[in-house]
Amino acid sequence: MRLIVAVILLLSSVMAYAQHPLAFATKAELEGVKKSITKYPVLQKSFVEIKKDVDSWLEKDVDVPFPKDPAGGYTHDRHKANYTLMFNSGLLYNLTGDVRYATLVKTILLKYATLNPTLKNHPQATSSSPGRIFWQALNDANWLVYTGMAYDLVYNSFTPAERKTIEDGAFKPEVDFMTKDLKPWFNLIHNHGVWACAGVGIVGIATGNKEYVDMALYGTEKTGKAGFIAQLDGLFSPDGYYTEGPYYVRYAILPYYIFANALNNARPELKIFGHRNSILKKALEAGLQQTNINGAFLPVNDALKEKDFTSNELVTAIDIAWDAYGKDAGLLTVAAKQDRVLLNRGGASIAAELASSKNIKTVYPYKTVEYVDGAKGDEGGISFLRMGKDADLTTLTFKYASHGLSHGHYDQLGFFMFDKGAEVFQDYGSVRFIGVEQKYGGRYLPENKTYAAQTIAHSTIVADEKSHYDGKEAVAEKNHAEKAFSSVSNPAVQVVSAIERNAYPDIDLHRTLYLLGLPAGKRIIVDLFHAISSNQHQYDLPFQYNGQLINTSFKYKGATAAQRPLGTKNGYQFLWREAEATVRDTIAQFTFLNGRTYYTVSSLIQDSAQVFFTRTGANDPDFNLRREPSYIIRKNGAAQTFASVIEIHGKFDPIGEFSTASYPLVKAIELKYNDENFTVAEVKMGKDILRIAQCNKDFSAATKHTVKVDGSSMTWTGPFTVLYNNKILQ
Amino acid sequence: MRLIVAVILLLSSVMAYAQHPLAFATKAELEGVKKSITKYPVLQKSFVEIKKDVDSWLEKDVDVPFPKDPAGGYTHDRHKANYTLMFNSGLLYNLTGDVRYATLVKTILLKYATLNPTLKNHPQATSSSPGRIFWQALNDANWLVYTGMAYDLVYNSFTPAERKTIEDGAFKPEVDFMTKDLKPWFNLIHNHGVWACAGVGIVGIATGNKEYVDMALYGTEKTGKAGFIAQLDGLFSPDGYYTEGPYYVRYAILPYYIFANALNNARPELKIFGHRNSILKKALEAGLQQTNINGAFLPVNDALKEKDFTSNELVTAIDIAWDAYGKDAGLLTVAAKQDRVLLNRGGASIAAELASSKNIKTVYPYKTVEYVDGAKGDEGGISFLRMGKDADLTTLTFKYASHGLSHGHYDQLGFFMFDKGAEVFQDYGSVRFIGVEQKYGGRYLPENKTYAAQTIAHSTIVADEKSHYDGKEAVAEKNHAEKAFSSVSNPAVQVVSAIERNAYPDIDLHRTLYLLGLPAGKRIIVDLFHAISSNQHQYDLPFQYNGQLINTSFKYKGATAAQRPLGTKNGYQFLWREAEATVRDTIAQFTFLNGRTYYTVSSLIQDSAQVFFTRTGANDPDFNLRREPSYIIRKNGAAQTFASVIEIHGKFDPIGEFSTASYPLVKAIELKYNDENFTVAEVKMGKDILRIAQCNKDFSAATKHTVKVDGSSMTWTGPFTVLYNNKILQ
Repeated sequence: MRLIVAVILLLSSVMAYAQHPLAFATKAELEGVKKSITKYPVLQKSFVEIKKDVDSWLEKDVDVPFPKDPAGGYTHDRHKANYTLMFNSGLLYNLTGDVRYATLVKTILLKYATLNPTLKNHPQATSSSPGRIFWQALNDANWLVYTGMAYDLVYNSFTPAERKTIEDGAFKPEVDFMTKDLKPWFNLIHNHGVWACAGVGIVGIATGNKEYVDMALYGTEKTGKAGFIAQLDGLFSPDGYYTEGPYYVRYAILPYYIFANALNNARPELKIFGHRNSILKKALEAGLQQTNINGAFLPVNDALKEKDFTSNELVTAIDIAWDAYGKDAGLLTVAAKQDRVLLNRGGASIAAELASSKNIKTVYPYKTVEYVDGAKGDEGGISFLRMGKDADLTTLTFKYASHGLSHGHYDQLGFFMFDKGAEVFQDYGSVRFIGVEQKYGGRYLPENKTYAAQTIAHSTIVADEKSHYDGKEAVAEKNHAEKAFSSVSNPAVQVVSAIERNAYPDIDLHRTLYLLGLPAGKRIIVDLFHAISSNQHQYDLPFQYNGQLINTSFKYKGATAAQRPLGTKNGYQFLWREAEATVRDTIAQFTFLNGRTYYTVSSLIQDSAQVFFTRTGANDPDFNLRREPSYIIRKNGAAQTFASVIEIHGKFDPIGEFSTASYPLVKAIELKYNDENFTVAEVKMGKDILRIAQCNKDFSAATKHTVKVDGSSMTWTGPFTVLYNNKILQ
Repeated sequence: MRLIVAVILLLSSVMAYAQHPLAFATKAELEGVKKSITKYPVLQKSFVEIKKDVDSWLEKDVDVPFPKDPAGGYTHDRHKANYTLMFNSGLLYNLTGDVRYATLVKTILLKYATLNPTLKNHPQATSSSPGRIFWQALNDANWLVYTGMAYDLVYNSFTPAERKTIEDGAFKPEVDFMTKDLKPWFNLIHNHGVWACAGVGIVGIATGNKEYVDMALYGTEKTGKAGFIAQLDGLFSPDGYYTEGPYYVRYAILPYYIFANALNNARPELKIFGHRNSILKKALEAGLQQTNINGAFLPVNDALKEKDFTSNELVTAIDIAWDAYGKDAGLLTVAAKQDRVLLNRGGASIAAELASSKNIKTVYPYKTVEYVDGAKGDEGGISFLRMGKDADLTTLTFKYASHGLSHGHYDQLGFFMFDKGAEVFQDYGSVRFIGVEQKYGGRYLPENKTYAAQTIAHSTIVADEKSHYDGKEAVAEKNHAEKAFSSVSNPAVQVVSAIERNAYPDIDLHRTLYLLGLPAGKRIIVDLFHAISSNQHQYDLPFQYNGQLINTSFKYKGATAAQRPLGTKNGYQFLWREAEATVRDTIAQFTFLNGRTYYTVSSLIQDSAQVFFTRTGANDPDFNLRREPSYIIRKNGAAQTFASVIEIHGKFDPIGEFSTASYPLVKAIELKYNDENFTVAEVKMGKDILRIAQCNKDFSAATKHTVKVDGSSMTWTGPFTVLYNNKILQ
C-alpha cells in the first residue's frame, strides 16, 4: 500500500493544475454546454432557473452574517444559499461571459476571507464534530465543495492579490480546521468524511494546492488508510451496497461523484471512475434500485421518507454518471422525473437525449436485487425481492446487514414491504423534521434513538423487551447476521433465509421469507421465524402495518376507557396499548385495508400467545412521533417458531362501491415437521395446499433430504422446496 | 296544481310509447353512436371495456341467486353485477346487432321473472325501507333503473309472451312493492325517492305502462306532492344546491339525469331539462363546484372522501348534460379525467370533442360560490370561498344551511378548509367502509351517528358538551342558520357572516369568516365567533386540523403515561385527551405542518381558557374510526368572543432540506371594540396592522357607522370593512 501511494504521489506531479476551471467542468466542456443551451428544453430551463435566481442578486449586497443560528435559522440558511449562489454565478460567468457574475462571486468570497479567520466553533454546535460557519462540520464541508468549485470557475478573472486574499482568508482556515482541529473526523470512513475529503480536495484543485488534494485522497497522514480512496474502498460492498443504507448513499453520492469528476479532470491518471471495478457505477445503480416506484428511498436505517431521487444529489450523480459510464435507459427515466440537469457535459447530453427520446419509461427498471454488506462483502447483506411491474410492484426488503454506522437501526432480520407504491409494512424511518428550526433545529430528535432505532419499531423479534445487541452501537458494529441461503432465479418463488446469533446472548434467530407468486396472480409472503434458546424468554414479533383494521379472527379487548403504554423502555414506552387478546391453538388472522387493497396476516398459534394492537404516541409530549399502529404477537418459551402468511388480496373500490376478495384465503397453517434440521410448513388456502420444506442447518445446494410427513416420506434437494398442490411451484 | 296535473296527464296520451328503445337512448341515436365508435378513442375504449366484460358472460349461465347477503356479500354483488350486465348487453345488442346479447338479457330477465314473485323482505334488512333483491329498497330501485333500460333496449327482440312473463314476473312485483308496500318511502322527498321514481318511471317507459310513469312523475296518488317533479322542485335550492350536500347530489344526480333523459325521449312535451330554469344544469354545476381540485366531493354531511367526479354517476350526468345543455369547458375537463363515456349521443359527442381538443384544462374552473338552501332558498346556505388557482387553490367552506335530511351533521357555522389539494381543516366525513362486508355489511357504522355527525367532530362551537339541537334530527330539520351578510366581489376580501339562534335554547352563535389575500400572496383567515348568552356556559371551539404539531406558543402537559377520554357522550367519548394547557391573557398560537406547508392558528385568550389536543380512538374497540387530531379551545362564561387568525405560511422542503417562513407573522390580536352592535379586531403581523370592523346587528349595505377606537373615530359604511395599514384592503 505504501508503495502504491508513493507511485501515485509521484504521478500526481504532472497534474494539469494550471488550467481553470477544472473542478466542476473544463473550459472546453462549458463552451460546449453554452452552445447547447437553446437547443434542449430541459437544459435551457435549468439554465434559466439558475440565471433568474442569480440575476436577482446581481446588484445587491449579499449578507455574509456572523454564524449564530442552527439549521433552519437565518444565518444557517443564508450561508447555505451563499455557496449555491456563488457556484451558480461562477457557472453563469463561464456560460455567458458576463463579468458581473464573476464580480458577485468575488464580493462574497472576499467577505468570507474576512469572516472565516475570525471564527471559533459555532455557538449552536452540539455534536462531536462542530462546524464554524454552520452548527456542524458537515455543513462546512458542503460549503467547501461548492465554494471551491465557484472559486475555480471564476479564478481566471481574479488578480493574484485577490487570489491570495481568498485562498488564505476564505479557504485556509476552513481546510486547516477540518484537517487539523477535526483530524480524527476528517479521517473517518463515514459519509461526513466523504464530504470533508471532497471539500478539501476540490479546494485543492481550485487553488492548485497539491497538499490539499493529497490529504483528500489519502488522509491527513497520506497513508491511504483514510481519505477518498479509502472511502471508495471501505464504505461500499463489492457490489455497490453502501453500508449506511439507501438514504445515506443518496447523501454521499454527491461528494463521491462531484469529487470523482473533479479528479477525472485534474488527475486523469487515477482513472477514478474505473476504480474498484467501477464501484461508483454500481453504487448509483444500487441506490436507485433501493427506491420505491415513486422514487423515494426505501427506509433502511435512519431515513426521511420524503427524500426521493429528484433531489439535487441524484441530479448531480446521474448527470456525471451519464458522461462517465455512458447512456442508460434507467438513468434517463430518473432524469425525466428530475426535469432539470447540471450545466455540464453530462447534463447537456441527457437534455439532448430527453429531447429526442420517445416513450421514456415512467418507472425505473426495478428488479429483485441482493446485496452483500461490508467492504469485503462478508458482513451479511440485504435483499430486495420484487414481484410485478410498474405501478403494480411488490417490494419485500429483508435486512441481515451490518449495523450501518451511527445511523443504523437495531433491526436484524427485519422486513418491510411496499405494494403498489404504498408502504404497507413500514420501517418508521427517522424522527426528524429536517430544516425545521422549531423541531430541535431540524436535527435528529431524541426519539430517533429512543424509538425509531429500537428493535420494537421494526418487524422482527424482540426478546424480553430488549433491543438487539442491547441497543448498543459499539456491540452492533461488531456483529451482523449471515445469509443462510437464498434463491431468486424463479420469479414465482423468491426466498431469503438468514441467521442472527449475536443479537441476544443465548438466543439464535433464524428467519426465512418466501415471496411467492401463486396461480391467478396472487402474491403471498410466508414467514418462518425461529427463535432458538435453551432458556425461557418472552418473544415479541411486531408487524408494523399501515392501514385500518378491518377484521380479526379472534376476539380482543379494546382499551376503551383508558390507555397505557406497553412497556417502560427500549421503545416500548412510546406504544399505547390499544387492544389486546389471548389466543390459543388457532390461526390468528388480522385483515387491514391500505389504500384499495386488503392485507391479511395469518399466524399459527400453537399453545397460547398474546396479541397487542399498539399505536405510537405515549410519552411523546412534544408530538415528535407520527401516530402509527403495530400488531404484535407475543409468545413465551424457550424455542419458538413464528409461522405467518401475509396475503395481498382483493380490491376495495369506494367509487364503484364494491369489494372483491376481501377475505383471506388461508384456512390453516400447520408445522408438519419442525426441528433443528428441518421445517415443513403446510398452508391450506381454500382447496389448495401450499407446502414448504426447508433446511435449518444444512444449506448446501446438492444435499438430498428426506423427512416423514403425515406418515409418508417427503424428499427434496437443496435448502428448500415449495410445493403447490403437490407440484413444485413455478 | 290539480289542474296542471290533469292537463299534463291529458297530454301524456300522445306519448311515443310504441317506439323502443327510448329510455336510455333512441334507436336513431344508437345508430349514430355505432358509426362513431371507431372514430373517437375514448368512445372506442368505453365500448371495448363493456364488450370485454359482457362477452366473458356470453356462453355462461349467469347466477340469479336467492337474496341472502348484505352489501359486500355474494348475492348482493351478484345482483348488482347482473343489472349492469343486462344493461350493457342490451346496449351491445343495439350497437352490434348480435342477437346473442339480447338472448343473454332475456335469459337473466326470465330468471328474475321466476325469482321476484317469490321474494319477501330481504333477510339482512335492517332499515325502515327494506329491499327484496337487496338488503335495502334503494338498491332495488337501482336494479329497476338499469333493468328497465336493459329491457327497453332488447324489447324488440322478444315475443309478446316473453314480454308478458317478464313484465308480470320481474317488474310488477318490484314496482308494486315500491309503490304499495313502501308507499310512504316511495313518496318521500329524498335521494332514495329520486331513485325509486326513476326506477318505476323507466320501467313504465320500457313497458309502455302509463300508470307507472305517472306515479313516478307525480307520486302514487298522482297529486304532484310526491314524485319526480316534486323531487326536482323540493330537493334543490333555486340556485341548484342539493340539500343533502355534495356527496349525495353525486349519488342522486344519476337518477335525476337518467330519468330526465328518458322523459325527454318519451314525454318531450314536459321539457324536463328546462324545468325550473334548467335546475338540473344548475345542480350539476353546483355539484362540480363542490369538489376539491382532485375531483373529490367536499365532505359536507355524511360523505366518503374517496368519492370523486370520475364515478359512474358523474359520467352519466355529464354525458347527458353535454347533449341537453350544450358544450362546456368545465365539463370537458371532468370528462377528460373520467376517461370514459356513455355509449349515447352525449358520450359520442364528448368523445369527439376530447379527440379534437388541444389544451384541455387540467383543473375544473373553480370559483367562489355561495348557495342558498331550501326549495325556496330561504333556509340558510353554504359558501365556498376560494383564493388562488389550479394546484394552488385555497377553499374555505362555511356551512349555515338546513340540516340536510337523514345524512345531515350537527355543524351549524362549521368550516373546513382545503389548501393545495390537501384537507387541512377537516370534516371527519362519514364512518363507513362502503362495500366492505366485514364492517357491518358496508353500511353506516354506529359511530357515524355517535361521532361523525356530532358537533364536536366539526370546527364550530359546542356548548356544554352537547351537540347543536341536542343532536335531534327532528329539531334540526326545523331550523337552520341565517346569513347575516357576505361579500365576495373583492377577491382579496371575501367574507361571510351567519347567525344561528336555535342550536341551543339560550345561546346565539354568530360567526364571521374572512378569507383575505394580503400583499406578497399571503393568505389568512380571520374568524370572529360570538357566543351570546345571558347564562353561564362552557364553550368548546375545536379546530379539526390535519397534520403534525410543530410548535405552540404556550406550555402544555402531555398525557404521557395514561390517556383518558375527554368526555362521556355526544362524541366526546371518542376523543383521547393527548395534551392540555391552561392559558391566560395571551395569544395562543399553534403551528402544524401539513404536507409541505405550515399553518398556524392564533387565538386571542382574554382572561383564561383551557386548550386540549385530542385524538379520536377512545371507546372504539372495533377500530371503526381513523385516528385524527383536534385542537380545542375551551372558555367558560356567558357571552364569549373567539377571535382567531389562521395563517397559511411558508414551505417545508424535505428534499432541499430547508424551510421558509415557518413561523407565524401574527404577533397580537386585540378586540378594540366589541359589543352587540360592533366588533373591531386588530391583528399585528410583523410591522403590519390589519384591522377589521364589522356590524353585529345592522347588516344593511348603506348604513354608515362610527365607533371610537383608541380614542379616535373610525367610520365605515355597510356591514364590515377591512383595513391593512390603514388602507382598505384590495
